[in-house]
Formats: sequence, C-alpha cells, structure tokens
Amino acid sequence: MGLKPRYEAYIACLNSRDLDGLDEFVSDTVIHNGSRIGISGYRDMLAGNYRDIPDLRFVIDLLLSDANTVASRLRFDCHPKAGFLGLRIDGRSVLFHENVFYRFEKGRIQEVWSVIDRGEIERQL
Amino acid sequence: MGLKPRYEAYIACLNSRDLDGLDEFVSDTVIHNGSRIGISGYRDMLAGNYRDIPDLRFVIDLLLSDANTVASRLRFDCHPKAGFLGLRIDGRSVLFHENVFYRFEKGRIQEVWSVIDRGEIERQL
Repeated sequence: MGLKPRYEAYIACLNSRDLDGLDEFVSDTVIHNGSRIGISGYRDMLAGNYRDIPDLRFVIDLLLSDANTVASRLRFDCHPKAGFLGLRIDGRSVLFHENVFYRFEKGRIQEVWSVIDRGEIERQL
Repeated sequence: MGLKPRYEAYIACLNSRDLDGLDEFVSDTVIHNGSRIGISGYRDMLAGNYRDIPDLRFVIDLLLSDANTVASRLRFDCHPKAGFLGLRIDGRSVLFHENVFYRFEKGRIQEVWSVIDRGEIERQL
C-alpha cells in the first residue's frame, strides 16, 4: 500500500479527534520542525489545537508522495476561539493553509516539516 | 522527462539570476498564492528578493513530483541586508525554509502555493 491512503487515514484520525489511535500513524520518537517531541508531545500539540479551535477540521488540498515522503497542502476553514499563533482571532472566521512534509518510517510518521501561513490569517484580521 | 529535472533546471535559473531565461519555466499568466501576477510580476518579485538578499541562493531540501505537480522544501542560508518579510534583519545571518507547491502546465509553472517560515526567522533575531 502506498503512503497516500495511509496519510488519508491519518488525517481521518485527526478529524475524528482519536488521540489514542494516533500510535498507529505517528512514531514514538517523532520529530516536529527539528524538535524531538515524541508521540506525547504530538498529542499535546493536537489537544491544544482542538482546544484553541473547536471547529478545527483538516482538509487535504494537494497531496504528493514517494516511497518514504508525503507532501501535503492542508486547508483550515475555522473559528479559533481566542488567540492562535500569537494572533487575536476571538471567534472570527479565518481560512488558512499549511504546507507540510512528512517522512515515514515503517508506515509511521517519523519527521514533520510544517509551515503554517500565518500571514494569510493576518490579512484577514 | 519528469518534472523533477525540469524543476531543478528552474532552480538553477533562479540561482544564476537569469530573469530573461524565466520564460522557459514560468507561464505568462502564472498565479502566485492566489494572485495572477503573470511573468512580469514574477520577475519583479524575484528582482526584489535579489535586491533585498544579495547572497540569496535556493537549495532544495525535499522534492516530490507527480504528473503535474511539484512539492519542494527550499532552504535559504543568507544575509538579508535590511528588512525582509517585515522583519528587521540588517545583514544578520538567517536560515529559513519555504514549503512550496507548483502546478505545471505544458512544462511551465502555472500556479504556485508558497509558505515561507517567517516564525523561524523571528526566533533567530
């Protein structure tokens, strides 16, 4: 099985907010933007996102993969309830994107290189 | 020929600062982050980057492609001479990345979705 269906299952896991099910997709020693946060740090990051953005939903706009790597452009159309990325949103509607690469090892995400388009949000405020 | 060598030739064109040669790689009607800036706007953007960052050099860290799309993580290790992305750099050394997707049409870039990691620069200042 290629990485695309695997990645889509990971995104479905995020959208169902199944933090317990995350082990199936994320390595215990995962590295996020250069920090070895591990699966517990990864869960904490997501729990924080769910808390800050009650209607958070991950939508895949673009998806490429090779044997070990996935590149994805994600779209978020949501209402962060207070602050997000240091910006004051206060429940307003924002649309923004994340361009992100993942390296998989044995079917699980071992490293993530993520960039969120913060400027796109600033222009909407 | 796949899109990877084509994209690498485009990056070589950028690094040789051959703005005249850009027609070979970029469509007349190119769209950049939702704005139809066209090739002249694309040239202006690059000329501005070369001016703001005298030692600008594009290095490909990650590269994926399919029939029509390229995903690239670019690395920049450089010295912006004054301001960049609204940040005051004043010649300091900064290392930052851009995660970017391109849709090609007939061998040329028709649409770009680019996100530069501005936060990464802020943390170095």
